[in-house]
Amino acid sequence: MSAGGPGAASALAVFSFGPDGAADGHRMLDPDGPALRVTDLAATRGDGVFETVGLHRGRPLKLDGHLARLLESARMLDLPAQDVDVWRAALHDVAATLDASTDGWVKLVLSRGVEGAGIPTGWAYGSVAPSHVTEQTEGVRVVLLDRGYRHDVAQTSPWLLQGAKTISYAINRAAFREAARRDADDVIFTSSDGYLLEGPSSSVVLRTGDLLRTVRTDVGILAGTTQDELFGWARRNGYDTAYGLLTPADLAAADAAWLVSSVRLAAPIRSVDGVAKPVDAALSAAFNAHLRGLAVPSAR
Amino acid sequence: MSAGGPGAASALAVFSFGPDGAADGHRMLDPDGPALRVTDLAATRGDGVFETVGLHRGRPLKLDGHLARLLESARMLDLPAQDVDVWRAALHDVAATLDASTDGWVKLVLSRGVEGAGIPTGWAYGSVAPSHVTEQTEGVRVVLLDRGYRHDVAQTSPWLLQGAKTISYAINRAAFREAARRDADDVIFTSSDGYLLEGPSSSVVLRTGDLLRTVRTDVGILAGTTQDELFGWARRNGYDTAYGLLTPADLAAADAAWLVSSVRLAAPIRSVDGVAKPVDAALSAAFNAHLRGLAVPSAR
Repeated sequence: MSAGGPGAASALAVFSFGPDGAADGHRMLDPDGPALRVTDLAATRGDGVFETVGLHRGRPLKLDGHLARLLESARMLDLPAQDVDVWRAALHDVAATLDASTDGWVKLVLSRGVEGAGIPTGWAYGSVAPSHVTEQTEGVRVVLLDRGYRHDVAQTSPWLLQGAKTISYAINRAAFREAARRDADDVIFTSSDGYLLEGPSSSVVLRTGDLLRTVRTDVGILAGTTQDELFGWARRNGYDTAYGLLTPADLAAADAAWLVSSVRLAAPIRSVDGVAKPVDAALSAAFNAHLRGLAVPSAR
Repeated sequence: MSAGGPGAASALAVFSFGPDGAADGHRMLDPDGPALRVTDLAATRGDGVFETVGLHRGRPLKLDGHLARLLESARMLDLPAQDVDVWRAALHDVAATLDASTDGWVKLVLSRGVEGAGIPTGWAYGSVAPSHVTEQTEGVRVVLLDRGYRHDVAQTSPWLLQGAKTISYAINRAAFREAARRDADDVIFTSSDGYLLEGPSSSVVLRTGDLLRTVRTDVGILAGTTQDELFGWARRNGYDTAYGLLTPADLAAADAAWLVSSVRLAAPIRSVDGVAKPVDAALSAAFNAHLRGLAVPSAR
């Protein structure tokens, strides 16, 4: 049990919803108790969207970006529009309950709700988390895995929901298991026609000289909030940035590469399919120092 | 509230699990109360598998086939092996609680469990359901939608979990919404290289003369329990049956076609992408009479 009180290891806010399907408030619940019905479409169909917001000493990282992306994901799934200030208040109360002496994260989830009820469910669940300093300094071993889709599938077949951050993540989890079977830590998905896409829970960043590159978001990947932040920082610090179609050959030829995400932050890639890749320790450190420095008090 | 007592509209059994991750019993819970934690990987990652078993007057249809497929799906997701007799007993108690004067269904779910706990969660939720006699007699309007994957992806990329019945079903739900936008009732997915696959919750059956055909299961589709039953019946009743690669042209040329599934049973297809298709009323009626006649008392 870890409910209630500042200094908690986890915390849970559950939203209430108005007749228009928009959250109109929240209440704090025991994070270790049952809170969902088995008929919630989150649990039976993975029919919902989510964001995971990093916390640095109790303060959220890039919250506006996450909330904007959550609403865009919801739009792609025809879920009701949400008032971001209601979500911001819930995240604030969750973060304020957690132990702020360490890092953590808050997951925001919006599901289509109990089947047949026509009302969404949603929650903000926060937890303290161990530091990812090992991955940030020593790097991660990645494998390339086929995602099965052409790079243009988001344009041709929007019902495949590529580019929405849905909770139907069984494939992403299976990809991590496949990576472990191959003695690796993480994955970069590739399109069926040979382009780099994204990690199961991260964006790909390549450096060649003073140029940072990432994947164009029209190939059915998520717009990375952490990648976007890093590119802004990079442009203010002497780097060029570019978005394009990238291939495994581009990754192999790059001077350095990272998987970047909201909780683990910037993890340098130290091998690809078993082939070692140099880790850019200095830029990795600069990336992560910048990201941690972004943490600001959350507004109520 | 609908908990407890024969004649209920819904019922819920939640499994307990031993240290090996196998269910070792169940207890009945209020089906309308909260039963899952928000950290259950069913709700946050769609990381689990399921089966929906049809009930005809309280008796399950093709239960052995569903339990076998559930275990195969679990194997594909590296979930722990389960004792089918424990699941059978839970289904029995759920079915025995429901109003047996009408039809219904029981959903069996096995999730990877609360994140970090290393113990699965699982439940059997049953509900009475309206009869699907309209779809069974008048038929359904279908549209063809690209599933994005080549027909051989289950062989090349098993981490995509094609052929496992996972609860990561957001795409299937989005496909139904796309069908509704196109003034249709249901969907047949096609591979990116032009083959028929399956419906979001059904198998495809074509009739040409005395030949019934369905899609080979090595193209990353589910092995249909209802389709399998119908093919056995058909062979005993003067039809030939075949499994193969099928195309939209085969569908267009067929004398009649059905979407078959465990709860709706055999629904004739009355149009494809807006083009009318003849409904074989006699064979539809024979199919559904046979399927309903399969219901047998469930074993404790």
